[in-house]
Amino acid sequence: MLMKRIAIDMDEVIADAGLKHLKLFNRDFNENITVQDLMGTHLKVLRPHLETEILNYLKDPAFFRDLEVMQGSQQVIKELTEHYEVFITTAAMEFPTSFTAKYDWLKEHFGFLNEMNFVFCGDKSILNADFLIDDNVRHFKHFNGQGILFSAPHNSNETGYERVNNWQEVKRFFLS
Amino acid sequence: MLMKRIAIDMDEVIADAGLKHLKLFNRDFNENITVQDLMGTHLKVLRPHLETEILNYLKDPAFFRDLEVMQGSQQVIKELTEHYEVFITTAAMEFPTSFTAKYDWLKEHFGFLNEMNFVFCGDKSILNADFLIDDNVRHFKHFNGQGILFSAPHNSNETGYERVNNWQEVKRFFLS
Repeated sequence: MLMKRIAIDMDEVIADAGLKHLKLFNRDFNENITVQDLMGTHLKVLRPHLETEILNYLKDPAFFRDLEVMQGSQQVIKELTEHYEVFITTAAMEFPTSFTAKYDWLKEHFGFLNEMNFVFCGDKSILNADFLIDDNVRHFKHFNGQGILFSAPHNSNETGYERVNNWQEVKRFFLS
Repeated sequence: MLMKRIAIDMDEVIADAGLKHLKLFNRDFNENITVQDLMGTHLKVLRPHLETEILNYLKDPAFFRDLEVMQGSQQVIKELTEHYEVFITTAAMEFPTSFTAKYDWLKEHFGFLNEMNFVFCGDKSILNADFLIDDNVRHFKHFNGQGILFSAPHNSNETGYERVNNWQEVKRFFLS
């Protein structure tokens, strides 16, 4: 039987980019913005006059190298690979300086996956998969499979998609 | 009307990696292997005792940065974008040190394409496209659209796929 295929985003899904971004911003601009403040919005929307500085963090090649792994993602993805084809699909073209850091991070934390299943892209409508687990609903619009929205502060108001709040819920969705 | 989508490989299709590889090898190992000698085979098959050295050229981050553009590819791809969605899809995961060079090369020579349409992947069955122009038939096996084989010395004996010998033939196939 042919395995179904799951494409999985990196930032905010398996790598905690949002938390590091917020910590660095608070430290450098002497602010105390909380995760709660980011519900349904983005840092650059809350502080529009600092948009360039906020984006610059993501242009630093080192930013993506030491992100925390999202809790439970390694174990659940390992289990998913027994029943599904798993691809890691990240919109790296938005930050081309991040390629090497993202690759090295994946090899370090998800070394049990074949790197032939890593995809660095921009427009995710190019993906041929049955499911896409992502925190950005814009990637679901032209995706040919089912979008599964992974909860992140910025998407808290989104409706209309299957939502998973953490990796235990991913496991329940795909493996029960 | 929805545009059909063409995915286009880089090496040997829009970037002349094979010729540079052969020239460097001949120079460094004092050989005179010709393109004719490579018909239906690979350098590493002709010189198996030098396989490591032959692959090492491709691991040099600089190798991919100054490749010659395949004749006619820029003009024809520009014309294709008027009638098709065009993605550049390269198996970069085999040589992860090549990411930045490949990206910079694309921005230099194909800057008229949106970088959101660049895809660095490994297993090309992840691509959702109507056509894939590629010199490696292995990528066609599990591809969900039509494979178009772009002639390269190593694939000269392959049959069973639509074949194009150059970019004028690509133009004829898609635009006439």
